[in-house]
Amino acid sequence: MRLTDFLPIFGWLKYYSRNDFHGDIFASAITAILLVPQGIAYALLAGIPPQLGLYASILPPMVYALFGTSKTLSVGPVSIAAVMIASALNAPEISALQQPVQSAVILAAETGVLMLIMALLRLGGLVNFISHPVLTGFTSGASILIVLSQLPPLLGLAKPLCVGSFSCYTNTVQTANTSTLLTGLGALLLLILFGKPLTGLLKKTLMKPAWITAISKCGPLLTVVLGAIAVNMFDLNNAHQVATVGHIPANLPELRFNAVDTAHWRHLLPYAALIALIAYVESVAIAKTIANIKGEKIQPNNELLGLGAANIASALSGGMAVAGGFSRTMVNFSAGARTQMAMLMAAVFVALAVMFFSPYFAAIPKSVLAAIILVAITPLIRLRNIVNTWRYDPSDGIAEVMTLLGVLVLGIEEGITLGIILTLVSYLRITSHPHIAVVGRIQGTEHYRNIKRHAVKTWEHLLLLRVDENLTFANVNFVEEFISDQLQRQPDTKHVVLIFASVSYIDSTALEVMESLSATLKSLHVTLHLSEAKGPVLDKLKKTDFLSHLQPGKVFFRTQDAVNELA
Amino acid sequence: MRLTDFLPIFGWLKYYSRNDFHGDIFASAITAILLVPQGIAYALLAGIPPQLGLYASILPPMVYALFGTSKTLSVGPVSIAAVMIASALNAPEISALQQPVQSAVILAAETGVLMLIMALLRLGGLVNFISHPVLTGFTSGASILIVLSQLPPLLGLAKPLCVGSFSCYTNTVQTANTSTLLTGLGALLLLILFGKPLTGLLKKTLMKPAWITAISKCGPLLTVVLGAIAVNMFDLNNAHQVATVGHIPANLPELRFNAVDTAHWRHLLPYAALIALIAYVESVAIAKTIANIKGEKIQPNNELLGLGAANIASALSGGMAVAGGFSRTMVNFSAGARTQMAMLMAAVFVALAVMFFSPYFAAIPKSVLAAIILVAITPLIRLRNIVNTWRYDPSDGIAEVMTLLGVLVLGIEEGITLGIILTLVSYLRITSHPHIAVVGRIQGTEHYRNIKRHAVKTWEHLLLLRVDENLTFANVNFVEEFISDQLQRQPDTKHVVLIFASVSYIDSTALEVMESLSATLKSLHVTLHLSEAKGPVLDKLKKTDFLSHLQPGKVFFRTQDAVNELA
Repeated sequence: MRLTDFLPIFGWLKYYSRNDFHGDIFASAITAILLVPQGIAYALLAGIPPQLGLYASILPPMVYALFGTSKTLSVGPVSIAAVMIASALNAPEISALQQPVQSAVILAAETGVLMLIMALLRLGGLVNFISHPVLTGFTSGASILIVLSQLPPLLGLAKPLCVGSFSCYTNTVQTANTSTLLTGLGALLLLILFGKPLTGLLKKTLMKPAWITAISKCGPLLTVVLGAIAVNMFDLNNAHQVATVGHIPANLPELRFNAVDTAHWRHLLPYAALIALIAYVESVAIAKTIANIKGEKIQPNNELLGLGAANIASALSGGMAVAGGFSRTMVNFSAGARTQMAMLMAAVFVALAVMFFSPYFAAIPKSVLAAIILVAITPLIRLRNIVNTWRYDPSDGIAEVMTLLGVLVLGIEEGITLGIILTLVSYLRITSHPHIAVVGRIQGTEHYRNIKRHAVKTWEHLLLLRVDENLTFANVNFVEEFISDQLQRQPDTKHVVLIFASVSYIDSTALEVMESLSATLKSLHVTLHLSEAKGPVLDKLKKTDFLSHLQPGKVFFRTQDAVNELA
Repeated sequence: MRLTDFLPIFGWLKYYSRNDFHGDIFASAITAILLVPQGIAYALLAGIPPQLGLYASILPPMVYALFGTSKTLSVGPVSIAAVMIASALNAPEISALQQPVQSAVILAAETGVLMLIMALLRLGGLVNFISHPVLTGFTSGASILIVLSQLPPLLGLAKPLCVGSFSCYTNTVQTANTSTLLTGLGALLLLILFGKPLTGLLKKTLMKPAWITAISKCGPLLTVVLGAIAVNMFDLNNAHQVATVGHIPANLPELRFNAVDTAHWRHLLPYAALIALIAYVESVAIAKTIANIKGEKIQPNNELLGLGAANIASALSGGMAVAGGFSRTMVNFSAGARTQMAMLMAAVFVALAVMFFSPYFAAIPKSVLAAIILVAITPLIRLRNIVNTWRYDPSDGIAEVMTLLGVLVLGIEEGITLGIILTLVSYLRITSHPHIAVVGRIQGTEHYRNIKRHAVKTWEHLLLLRVDENLTFANVNFVEEFISDQLQRQPDTKHVVLIFASVSYIDSTALEVMESLSATLKSLHVTLHLSEAKGPVLDKLKKTDFLSHLQPGKVFFRTQDAVNELA
């Protein structure tokens, strides 16, 4: 165990070059320009004051920079985690407490602690719990919910959009505020123009790609600045009821953590568990995408450590739960970031912005922030993907659709839980059918091969079965069924030999089933034997009374020995 | 599809013999003698009026007899399901409704419907969801809870036993009612004597085993009768405050089902899901144990159908959720039951008892019923099993202990959920490491074998990898890691060939990872190829653009073809 195993920053910092610095400082400015409006917008999306998003953009990326193995992952507030926080805060038992800020901070702390526990237990492989179809279905569903939630602030509706009946719908839409609508749609138009149209235009000027990224990513900042200017110039918030962000304290976050109300923590725990899972899985997916491009490596357990520490740092500094953001990471990478120094410096820029520009944030219209969220979230709705998945594998397609519908109809947590259950059920169905073959001897040799594929010698009283997989609770019943089917086909069998050459693990359920199988076979006057069992498997079996229950069945070293004695 | 696939009763009824009838009628009388006190006791354990247990002993076993594949399973009220019902009824959102009877009936209906849905989806394999250690840990934990819950009625305590402090404990124990205590301990003593001591004595008389079973199983009936006589003779319930069962309506259940309160149903659904899972898993385990002894077969999907229909029948006739009971089934079997005709007749006996003896049930002391539950439940507490499991496989041992502690500390539902999660996590950890081997050619042949086990020819620019398992979301990351590790060891590699001879399924997550792997390898100037892919796998891949993304990588029919072209 070396220091760099825990703190990868000491691995790369000593080789840090001037070139690295040039790339990092440029990328850090661009990423900071994105972080400020995103921090405010995602906090509002989560239903908490904007400073919780800003605070989550300062300490957490710094802490991640120390522990994380991804060189370009941009850790901070992200939309999917924000909507999961909103969902937790809206749950009856949580909203009844009427402490949304406290709840959001506890959620971040619990998310961090859970990630650290997962790191400690080396559960980085938990990423395998969620298949791509389920993750895509979940992301699409959550993104649709986000889009729907942003329509009222974008249009300036007085109440949530109602789609129950046409009259109810028109009544709600009629509450739209024209000034809000105009600023919102104006921001939306500007942001869309800053996307493909602008980059297309800039590419024709043969500008450097890093500069094209830089300019096109100033869209959110520009809309926010223009929106705030418009509010001040036309007195939009007083004279025209355009909702704005309002006062944000100009001080940096204080490090503290008060009040452990155990009931409050317990209520939030299931939500934190799902946020931790999704935040981890999404972050690793993003980090891996970039690492693959750069030929680098991600260590899942280090990522758990880094993300866990970042979330605890967020909670300690009064911020919301954080994760790696897809679009921001891509921007950081394509703006030329070489190391996590870029995110360290971006965090410093955000801190400076909070200290010196907070008074100006107050005038940002909420409709502009809604437009920023809409533009960021729309690419995450990937309905086309469902068609492709379905065409390739209908059971995966069903899992994707069910997860998406689950999120929309039942709710965020219910949807992802449903998706995970569906994945596991289909996985168990697949893996509960282990490879198992009836084998016979290739004439003139001591090799034993599948009777279906080779011309081999078999014996009327002897059944040789090669089990090709580890025996566990999930597949041992299939093995039992297989043997009983074979015995019906070959009713004169007196001895069954299980060839365990490929078996390196037998769990205790499988052991019990094998014991009862041996007893059942005895009552049918058939003896069960083993052959070619590996040393560790045999050592474990010797700790139990399985081998004495097996008697008169034996354990043969080689299958040939069994044939010599029993055939 | 034949009729007997759904209604196994038509398979055996036409061969029904006089001998079968002799065995069945005798067993039915013994089982009915057990069913009546158990029905009353388990209903009280669930916290509902006794008739719900009696009604659950009439129609459900009859319906199971039509659909079930086990010839001797005794379906009716069982202790574990009863304590799960009690837990559901005590949940804040359920107990707030103050409709325990209605809730218990809805639980039975939902349990039945969920089982039928599982049968429809052919999810009989769900039995694989729960490993033996988790099931044993759960059963032990739930049984301990049952024992603790029966101490107050046994001792006649005025309030639940309190173990928080010594003074609190003594205060509670001092509320014990001497008369209740005496009837309870008397019943306990009688039941214990009717166990091993009596059967040991009877065996010496060379009596027929079936008669020994019969006599020893009359213990519960005898204690109940003696208890009721004592209550009447000494006026125990009025003069000495001995709690008794109280009035039970003497009419048979009416078939009806009123009021669908969707919120009520939705609240109960998660509890019903866990009851359905446990009831199914326990019933199949019992049915299998007996079927193995008799050399018969259990069809898991038929069991789901039978148990589902039985639960719906229970709900329709105003009863509680049912399952196959272990001790009752063993009694039924050892008393000589040959077919489900025994349970059909036992149900008729219970119905007659309800019609003609209900007035007498009122005087049964609750302490006697508590004694019956205690004697029935104690063998299910298998703490010794934990030691054995732990010694054989520590990770299984941890799952067993955690499940048991989960049940005791967190609650019934939380405990079993924790156990299932632990099983799945450990399962994913094991199965996420697929067999994968670097292979080379055995000189002078076209056979390719593992380089670790055979002296084979390999090539500097060519890496041949044989993947021995289906590729899924759970193991594809390991394959990716394996390939990148191999490339680091063999840096001159230009071509990687994946030999898919053993792969018969690639899920869509694995497909996506393979696509990104191919792209990553391209950027490192390495080309990915496939060989020996099976027809169905190739057909599925052709539906996607994977093969065009693979180019210039190819799909070779034989590995030899790949070597001829690339080596």
